[in-house]
Parts: sequence; C-alpha cells; structure tokens
Amino acid sequence: MSGSIYGNLFRISTWGESHGKGIGVVVDGCPAGLFLTEESIQPYLDRRKPGETKYSTPRKESDTVEILSGTFEGRTTGTPISMIVYNKTQRSRDYSEIASYYRPGHADYTFDQKYGFRDYRGGGRSSGRETIARVAGGAIASLILKTIGIEVNAYTKSIGPITIDYGKCSKENVLKSPLYMPDLDASLQAEDFLTNTMQNKDSAGGVVECIVSGMPAGIGETVFEKLDANLAKGVMSIGAVKGVEIGSGFQAATMTGSQNNDNFFIADSQVHKQTNHAGGILGGLSDGSEIILRAAFKPTPSINKTQQTFNTMGENIDINVKGRHDPIIVPRAVVVVESMVAMTLLDMLFSNMCTRMDKFTAFYHQ
Amino acid sequence: MSGSIYGNLFRISTWGESHGKGIGVVVDGCPAGLFLTEESIQPYLDRRKPGETKYSTPRKESDTVEILSGTFEGRTTGTPISMIVYNKTQRSRDYSEIASYYRPGHADYTFDQKYGFRDYRGGGRSSGRETIARVAGGAIASLILKTIGIEVNAYTKSIGPITIDYGKCSKENVLKSPLYMPDLDASLQAEDFLTNTMQNKDSAGGVVECIVSGMPAGIGETVFEKLDANLAKGVMSIGAVKGVEIGSGFQAATMTGSQNNDNFFIADSQVHKQTNHAGGILGGLSDGSEIILRAAFKPTPSINKTQQTFNTMGENIDINVKGRHDPIIVPRAVVVVESMVAMTLLDMLFSNMCTRMDKFTAFYHQ
Amino acid sequence: MSGSIYGNLFRISTWGESHGKGIGVVVDGCPAGLFLTEESIQPYLDRRKPGETKYSTPRKESDTVEILSGTFEGRTTGTPISMIVYNKTQRSRDYSEIASYYRPGHADYTFDQKYGFRDYRGGGRSSGRETIARVAGGAIASLILKTIGIEVNAYTKSIGPITIDYGKCSKENVLKSPLYMPDLDASLQAEDFLTNTMQNKDSAGGVVECIVSGMPAGIGETVFEKLDANLAKGVMSIGAVKGVEIGSGFQAATMTGSQNNDNFFIADSQVHKQTNHAGGILGGLSDGSEIILRAAFKPTPSINKTQQTFNTMGENIDINVKGRHDPIIVPRAVVVVESMVAMTLLDMLFSNMCTRMDKFTAFYHQ
Amino acid sequence: MSGSIYGNLFRISTWGESHGKGIGVVVDGCPAGLFLTEESIQPYLDRRKPGETKYSTPRKESDTVEILSGTFEGRTTGTPISMIVYNKTQRSRDYSEIASYYRPGHADYTFDQKYGFRDYRGGGRSSGRETIARVAGGAIASLILKTIGIEVNAYTKSIGPITIDYGKCSKENVLKSPLYMPDLDASLQAEDFLTNTMQNKDSAGGVVECIVSGMPAGIGETVFEKLDANLAKGVMSIGAVKGVEIGSGFQAATMTGSQNNDNFFIADSQVHKQTNHAGGILGGLSDGSEIILRAAFKPTPSINKTQQTFNTMGENIDINVKGRHDPIIVPRAVVVVESMVAMTLLDMLFSNMCTRMDKFTAFYHQ
Repeated sequence: MSGSIYGNLFRISTWGESHGKGIGVVVDGCPAGLFLTEESIQPYLDRRKPGETKYSTPRKESDTVEILSGTFEGRTTGTPISMIVYNKTQRSRDYSEIASYYRPGHADYTFDQKYGFRDYRGGGRSSGRETIARVAGGAIASLILKTIGIEVNAYTKSIGPITIDYGKCSKENVLKSPLYMPDLDASLQAEDFLTNTMQNKDSAGGVVECIVSGMPAGIGETVFEKLDANLAKGVMSIGAVKGVEIGSGFQAATMTGSQNNDNFFIADSQVHKQTNHAGGILGGLSDGSEIILRAAFKPTPSINKTQQTFNTMGENIDINVKGRHDPIIVPRAVVVVESMVAMTLLDMLFSNMCTRMDKFTAFYHQ
Repeated sequence: MSGSIYGNLFRISTWGESHGKGIGVVVDGCPAGLFLTEESIQPYLDRRKPGETKYSTPRKESDTVEILSGTFEGRTTGTPISMIVYNKTQRSRDYSEIASYYRPGHADYTFDQKYGFRDYRGGGRSSGRETIARVAGGAIASLILKTIGIEVNAYTKSIGPITIDYGKCSKENVLKSPLYMPDLDASLQAEDFLTNTMQNKDSAGGVVECIVSGMPAGIGETVFEKLDANLAKGVMSIGAVKGVEIGSGFQAATMTGSQNNDNFFIADSQVHKQTNHAGGILGGLSDGSEIILRAAFKPTPSINKTQQTFNTMGENIDINVKGRHDPIIVPRAVVVVESMVAMTLLDMLFSNMCTRMDKFTAFYHQ
Repeated sequence: MSGSIYGNLFRISTWGESHGKGIGVVVDGCPAGLFLTEESIQPYLDRRKPGETKYSTPRKESDTVEILSGTFEGRTTGTPISMIVYNKTQRSRDYSEIASYYRPGHADYTFDQKYGFRDYRGGGRSSGRETIARVAGGAIASLILKTIGIEVNAYTKSIGPITIDYGKCSKENVLKSPLYMPDLDASLQAEDFLTNTMQNKDSAGGVVECIVSGMPAGIGETVFEKLDANLAKGVMSIGAVKGVEIGSGFQAATMTGSQNNDNFFIADSQVHKQTNHAGGILGGLSDGSEIILRAAFKPTPSINKTQQTFNTMGENIDINVKGRHDPIIVPRAVVVVESMVAMTLLDMLFSNMCTRMDKFTAFYHQ
Repeated sequence: MSGSIYGNLFRISTWGESHGKGIGVVVDGCPAGLFLTEESIQPYLDRRKPGETKYSTPRKESDTVEILSGTFEGRTTGTPISMIVYNKTQRSRDYSEIASYYRPGHADYTFDQKYGFRDYRGGGRSSGRETIARVAGGAIASLILKTIGIEVNAYTKSIGPITIDYGKCSKENVLKSPLYMPDLDASLQAEDFLTNTMQNKDSAGGVVECIVSGMPAGIGETVFEKLDANLAKGVMSIGAVKGVEIGSGFQAATMTGSQNNDNFFIADSQVHKQTNHAGGILGGLSDGSEIILRAAFKPTPSINKTQQTFNTMGENIDINVKGRHDPIIVPRAVVVVESMVAMTLLDMLFSNMCTRMDKFTAFYHQ
C-alpha cells in the first residue's frame, strides 16, 4: 500500500533511497500566492545536513534543494511543488556486506519479510535520508504558518542522561549549541557524554521537545482526527521515535485531577490558563495556549561494537557494522520534528475552515 | 471536517452523544464470512460498561448492542455493519449548569471556540461514551485477528503512583482485579489509593499496557504509514491519553545503542530476539515478536473540588462540578486501547496484502 | 474494502439492506450551526418514496427519517448526524426462490463471485433502497448549498424514446408530472409508453438531467479532483446509471472547436458566455455559469418476462422473476441524482476554501 | 486541496507544467518484485508523444522517461517509484500574449478565479502535458495487470462524424492507423476530415473506446466505490473528456429491460452472457466479461479562428490564439484513457484482496 504520502489537504508524497539518485517530495495542496524560492527552503535543510559537527555522520552532502514545479514568478501557483535533492556521495560498496545479514535495531529483517528482498545500500528507503523530504515539505508548511503568526520551535531536551535545566534556557542558545540544546551547560555535558559514547563505539538517544506558539483555539477534529492524535502519528512516523507525549504526558498518569487540570481565567479580555499541563490541547482541539510535544528517540542502531545476528543462510553470526554513522541523530532530528508538527498543524488549520456555517457563508459572501 | 471515521480498508464511522438517543458505529470493510452476532460483541462492551465497580461512574447503563445491518444467517456479508447502543439513563438536567461555564481539563472551551456553541449535556460528543463505538468496532477487528492467531491483550500497568510488578503478574489476574491489573497486590494497593483519592474529592490517572502476540513480521507500510505511527494515532485519539510509547519507549532515549538493540538469533529454525526493546516494531514494520505499547491516561478532569474558571459572561468564577463521574477511567479504558490497537493492526494486515508481486499473482491464480 | 463511504470533507457513511431492519446514513463533516430537523429532510425522501404512482413498485414504505445524533436545540453541532429509516414492509419470502439462481442484469452473480455468498432478500445491499441514505445525506448538502444561493435541480429528460422539448418546459411542471418531466406533453406520452411497456411485462430506462445554478467560479481541484470527475463518480455510483455527461457531452465529440467553444463577454460588469457547451466546467473548475449534467439510466432489470440464466447447481434454466418491481426507476432517481450532485459540490466548495494564501490569512485574521 | 494524487492503494502523485522544467510522477503502492526499467515504460509514452503525425502539435519533445527511485537490480522494491520527463522545447515567449486574456474553452478564466493568478505559459498545469505523468503511472499498472492476464486496449472509435465499422476492425489496424483507429477505411476518411478541419483553422473531437479482457469477476466495491464509478472518475479527470459511458451507455436509456438484460448461460463449465450490454459490470462489480468503456473528447479549444472574449482589463476583445496546437487530441489520448483505466482496475484488484474471510485466513496461512 501507499505509505509515502502524508496529510489530507496539505499533502506530501515523498520518494528516494539513501544510495539512489536522490530524495524528493511533491507538495500537493499548497495554497496559491506564497512567496517561495529555493532560498526559503534551504535553511531548513541545512539544519539536518550531515557532516556539520563531529556528532554526525562524516558523509558529506550539500543537500541542495531544487524546485521543479509549482511556482511562477516567485510565487506558488496552487499546483504541486516538486522538489529534489540529489545524492552526491553515495558509496554503495560500503554496504555490500550488509546484504548478507540482518543488523539488529534496523529494518533489514522486516523489509525482507515484507517485500521478499531489499535495497540494502545504506538502508535504502529506511535510511534517515528520507527525512530530507519531510523537511523540505515542512519548510513550506512552516512558512505558511508564519503568515498567521504561528511559530514551531523544537530543540534537544535531553541526550542520554543529560537533560536541560529550564532555568538556563533561551531560544538563542539553541542555534549556538552544536546539539541544538537551549541550555549551554547541558550542551557541554552532552558533548562530553557523546565523546565518551563514541570512544566506546556506542551510540546515544535523546528527547526532542517542540513548542508551538500562536496557535488559535479550536483547531483539530473531534474523535479520531484529534490534533494530538495526528501529531502523534506524524512524529511517531519519524524513524527511531519510540514515544510521543503531549503536555505533562506520561507524568500526567501519576498526577491527580486537581494537580493536572489547568484552571482558566480571564485577564485583559483574554482567556488564560494558570498552568499548561494539557500542552495546549483539550478534547483533541487546540486551546489557544502553547502546544507542547515531546518525542523520544532511540539510540542510533548502527554501532561499531560486535553484535549477534543471523545471515541470509540462516546461520547465527557475530557482526561488526562498518560505514558512516551518526553516533546520535537527535540534533539533526530537531528540524524533522518541527517539520512533521508544522505539516500536521497546517492540515488541521485547513480542515477547520469548513466546520462552521457562519464562516462558510461568509467565505462565499452570502 | 469529517473526524469520526477511522481506518482506511477496515473503517469505522461513529456517532452519538452522551445524552442523545444513543451511540453507534458503522463498520465498513469487514470481510464477508465472519460468524457474528450481538453475543460476539457484547462481552467487549461489558468490559467498559459503567457502574460495575465503585471506581466508576454510578450512571447505570446496560450498554446492550444491536446489529442493524451487514449480517445474514449469522455471518457478515461484506457490507456495512451498523450497530447501536441506546442511552437509557441520560439525565440532562444535571448538566444545565455546565452550559454557562467552561470546566478545566474538559473540551467545553475548545468546542465553543471551534463550533460557536456546544451540546453541553454530559460533554456531548466529547464524552467518554463515544468509546462504546470504538469497542464495538474493535470487537469485530479482534474477532477477525483471532482467526489468524493474533491476540491483543491490554491491562492496567499503573494507577497514580502504584505500578505492577511483572514478577507477580498473570493473565488470569487481569479479570480478577476490579482495576484490570495483572498483579493482585498492586491492584489492592491501587484500590486503597483510589479510595483515598475519592475521599479527597479528587481523581487519578494511570498507564495501560497492551501486548499483541501472534503478529506476523513485515506488517506496516514504510515512511508515514508505519505500524507504530498508526498505533500512536489510534491510541492518542482516545480521550484523556497524553502519551504513547512502543517497547522501551521514553526509556530508550537514555540507553545506548548496545543496550537498546535487540540481537537476533535463530533457534529451531525460527527467528528470535534476545530482548524486545523495539516492542515488536523495526522500521515501522512488525518484526514477529510481541508488540508492546503503553498509553498514559491523565486523571479524570471532573472532580468535586473547587476550581477556578470563567463563564460565558466573561467573568472569573469558582466552580464545583456536580454529576456522575469516574474517579479513574483507566480500568474501563483497557478494552478501548485494545480496540484501537486491534482495528489498526487489522487495517495494516489488509493493506499488506497488496505489497508483493508474487502474492498478488498467487491471489489471482496466474 | 470500505465502499459505503462517500466524500472527503463532507462525508457520508451508509448502511442497510432491502430486507434488513432499515437503511441509515451517518453524515460526518456537516458544519455546526445549520438549522436541521427531520422536517427539513423528509420532503427529499418523499420524492423517492415508492408506491406514489402506478409507475413505481407497489411496496408501501413511509420512509420516515429519524435523526439520532448531531443536533442540539434544532441546530447541527458539527458532530456526526446519524439518520435512520426503518424498513416496514419487507416480505422476505417473496425472494426465497431468487437464492437459487442469478437474475440477468442484477448483481446476484457478481456478489456471489466477490463475497462467496449473498443476502438475496430483495437484492440485499445492491437494492435501490440504499439510495434512501444518499437522499438523506444529499438533503443536508442541498440545505447548506441553499444558504449561499446554490440550487440543484434535476428532472427526467427522457423515458425510453420520449424526450422533452425545451420549448415546452418549466420548473413548475416538474412537480406536476408524475414522472418529474418539465414538459407535460412529453410526460403524457411517456405515461402511455410506460403503460404499454408494463403490459408487455417489460421495463424502461431514461435520462435524468441536472442543472446547478448559483455556483461560484473556480470550484474543483485540478488534475484528478476535477469537479466533473467527482460528479461523474458520484452519479455513476448510483445503481443503473450507465453513462454520465457534462454540457454538450457526447455530442461535443462531433463538433468542431469553433462550434463547441463558448465565447466569453463582459456585460454589466459580469462575465458571461455566449453559449454553455462546457456545461459550466472548464479545466475541471466551475466557470460561474450553470452546471449541466446528464445521467443515463438503464431499464429496470427486474421484468416478468421469461429469461435465461443458470442456477447455483450450474444448470441452465428459464426464470420468471416475481416480486414488487418498478417498471422504471428514473422518476424516483431524480432526487438521487440531485443528492449525489449536491454532496459532491459541497465537498469541493469545502476543499476550495484552503487554496489561496490571501483567503487563508484573512480567515485566520492576520 | 491536494488534487494531483490519484488512487487509494496504488497511488500516483503527479506534478509539472507545460513550460516548467519537466513533468513527473511518483508511484506509491507498486508491489515489490516487478521487473521494471525505463525501457518497459517508454513505449507507452511514445504513443502519446507529440509531433509524430501531422495531426498533432509540431512541438518536438522526445519525452524520455527517467526512473529516479524505487527499483533495485531491475526490480521494484515496494517503495515509491519517482519518474521524470524533462521539458526540452518550451518556448514561453509564444504565450506572453495569453497572459492578458482568457481563451474560450480553456481553463484560463477558471484558474484565475480559483487561484488569483496563473502560470499562463502553455496552459501551465492545465496543459495536456500533465498526461505524461498519467501514462508513466499507467504503464506500470498495465505491466502489473498483464502478469495476471488482464489486457487494457483502447482505440479511436470516432473522429468528428467519422465512426468505425466494427465489421472492418482488427487489433493490428490500431497501430497501422496514424489516428489509432481499428478500421483503416474510417481512418482514411478521418484523415480527410481532419485535413479539411485544419484548413478551416478549426479543430475536432472524437470518442475513445476501451476494452478490458481477462478481468476476474467480483472486482469493485459496492455502493460508492463501484468499479464503473471509479472508472468514470478516472476517465472524466482527463482534460477535454465531457462524457463517459459503460457498455450500452446512453443507448441503454432507450432500451427495454428485455433488450438490455444480458442472459447468462453455462457452457463448458464456464459462465457466459449472450450479450454484453452491461459492459462487463453489474452492480458495480466486474462480471467476468469484457469491460467496455467510452469517453467523449471535445474538440481542442485552441483554434486559429477569431474568437470573442475579454481581457484582464475587463474589455471585450477579439482574439486569434497562436502557438503550437493539436487539431485533435483524440489519437494521443488513447493511451491516456488506457492508463486511467489500468490504474483504476489495479487499485480495485488490490482492495478486493481483503473482502473475504476465507481468502484473508489463507493469505495469512492459518
């Protein structure tokens, strides 16, 4: 079945493998009239580009995006926007060995079980390189959200055991930290931790936190198309994500109602909440306060330590995976989380437009 | 937008409010030839029925299901199965007061923001009663899964601060515990905790864990329609769920690759894993081991304690919500989690049927 | 697969068999704030009700609709509207014979091939009674369209060889004619033709024409979700429809470009066309002029004449189908065509709301 | 809204404008294991390539397809197949004049009404060049269908007033005729007719007929996802199509039941029909006989005759459209019709795989 299409009204269709010709995305459902060039999108891709720090794979890729359709004289036309990023430095020979066995923690075995065989070069379609397409699509969604004052900002909340201290955080720090952590002390500690982890030929995981500001209230659809349900799907679909939570999340399970409920109050003719345990979503609809979401990333499964597995001959073997790997993917995943959140929010802002008779008749001027 | 339809190939369309005529579901996409009567479905509904223990709302409802279409001579015909559960004891007058203000932790404010007004009687469509429809649909999915040896079993993992001890757990215990906990010691402690919580006019949350056995490998679709992504959406769409995790979940973020990777091995010509941190899903596809999923439920927002909020006149007020409420919804939600998991799995088992040329040509006998 | 759900943003999910408990529909995606009661919907159903004239089946059904959910104090709430029409006079014994053979022109054989068996009572799900659900859903769509000045009007254009003369037509005539023909002379001739056909124990077909006025320009989505493409699907999905055309339709194939092109002109600051061969749709988008659509209905396959077929034993046999049949379904299908058109238009009016940046930002007030 | 995605399980996402960088398609949902190279697809594209005869636009394009993803070692992997055809000879200056006015019969006016402005170069997204993407996707669908013995064959049935004589037709003739007519006498007459039409600076339309052989019975989904409903949508979505009919189509409306019903009989243990007025579809499901579909194409709207219209200043003007146009698009559209039919059939063959319990349990080996 088709699994590479995301969204309903704002929809992306993605394609490409780690060691194929490139990675691409078709954005279908972008409204007409958005100012858009490659320069608007490239900064988003640069944030997930490999080889920027010593904590990411040494594979060098410029990841330069090219727009192939859907714009005219610098503006979107309302028709599909096709974008492509060519793979430049695929080195398939590194991966020939992988063809014969199943790496623990990877999709090698499950792909073979599903499809009968697989493109084993760098993980093929299951490679993290597919997230280029998510980021290119997410960039467009983010640009549209900005026009109505919605900002989506994610950062690294924790790496292994190192967690940020909210008291030391600032937005500016995020871009100063090579790990996209808003607390620079935690960032330095995490660097130490990662250096140590790499020396042990091991890898690390972490948590990305995403904050959305400026979201109007009432966005999302009741029952199954809840805003949080769709956010959970979008974020859980990112490779390596093993958990998603909103607001107080798993901690809510240990709280009492009187602790967890956010009391409302009116001040300056505006609705406020005393707390935001709900993470900005009540009954599946945005409540006008900040949306808070966290995603747990497992450690990169590619490690240079010896591991046990079996091969295509059905023999139990010891392996030592070579290749160019990220010791941690969390920092590069920050913009991927933002992208999935932005596209999901936009889709639900669109669907919300046809939920009230008064707004429908006003739209069609009667 | 349409938000009350779930699934792609196995699809349910649900309707109904807490204090309307009833709750219903249309199951579209059930294969022909399944033996099905009301008696097959009722046991699932009985597990979420209110009023069974002192830890659930005293509202008495038999929640008896009636099949209106889609079966003939005891078997499904392949056409839509419409099911209805009538509301018997709706007492709308209890709720007239609610019309004038917005309860903290509820969807009152967000519904008003979205739709301009709301059916305030018992929360209307945002009431937990809508899960009757999920359970009726999930019962059919579960029955279909059983025909190929797949079992979906959920239970209460924790209530407030009380968590089960896996060493003391058994499947049989689940039905013995009024809280659906597989560890009866923990269950007793949780009962004490809840009694105390109720005396404080407060409410509690908890975690539901769901285990799927018998799942073949390779189920799920790559990139966006990953099995875990769809499970996350399905489960997060249940009211009060604030977090979802698979396998080691949020803990994976603190582990190293060598700790978290599950080594494969072959024994007795079968593929096994030494551990199951992945929770049965690799690269978004089932890996043949047990699927492990957890959902965090927030405490019931309806409490009898005084809370601050504002009313429809825009005044800040203190409220004390009356009505018949559950001090905890977790035990009744166990079967709801199972239902969402079962429907999601079945949908992806269906979509997997058309992903290989060899199986396609075999199906059509050429 | 799910086949009983129609639409994307305005969505109906239908269920029910000819001889089951009833026929129903869940409307999901109706905006909040529409004034709606059973009285608003019943007139639409009355137009397709059987037994009103001697040209329809003598089966007597009041086809009274009951709303089960989705309204509060006389207005829609934005949540699913479930409606039911109970079957009152199903006489299953009439059909027991049908179980053993396959009626020509019916879905008996194809249902058995697909599902392995079938609910043979009155055609089960393939009965024309399923159109009750379409009409109930279409009624709501029509009521919404009216609020912005869009009217959907269908009528019988031809029955067998008898076609209306546009020179003699009026809107008022449609309701005066028992056959819903706007030309009363043609209507009388068609009545004679039908009387004759019935005496021959035969049946007749015809063409329904549908005119939509008040449609704004630019509605529809380019390439695959064209307005005409969706109208074609919606109308062709009505049982017995074998052809659909827009504007000059099949005749356009014999015209030259200079004959078929509709020249534009401006008069009174309004855009007009000198002709309307396009039937109101250019490039898949509405052009602001009347939408003109025609649907060809085959003659009712149930006839009392002897026919050849085979039975479930694999024997060639002669049959004579008994039961209560319509000698023609065209007049009762008029409102069914309107319903499919109305729901399709509304769905595309909804999707059009998110296709321009300027309107998006205006909607969200920035 | 997203309008450039077609299909549910076998899905294409298309992009590109007449005078942009190229035209492309992403095929999502192609099963793994199909042998596929550019050489398998190119012959389909060659059949719609411009400039092959004097009856098509003189614009020269090789329309060479390149596969960018989704195959490995000559076989599809089950992941998205991205294909691109670069535009080589776009001459945008030809079209600068068009920017200022609205061509009759074109989408200029409706695009401006919908999107606020348009890419006017060669019609932009509304150009017939978008059908390249349909044909590339359709080629893959056709190749898959062939593996189970299903052949989709279309041809020109009529051009203007010239219609084929079935007595003179053969499959071989289709490729001999520059107009893809299976009757070579009619083809010669049509050539004369077109020469005359071109001398008059006019254009012509025609009818494409499509025959599907080898289709198993029972394919399609009841009620809204009928096989004929989906075929109608797919074919009506082709630009310039104004009507679609199945089997006896519009003629059925003038027949009686006894004339139109196809009697069944068994011979050599096979089910046959004495006639095929149904065009291979009963109750929306294939009946095992040939599927017969016809599409009416309007004459090319671009003509060199003087026409009336208005310009962007709101003035009524006379225009004379220049540029490289097809005097008829029907012959080049033959393979486009085949493509839409093939993709639609495949999608419904896929969805049919999960409609019976016995086949479901057999697939999953229990």
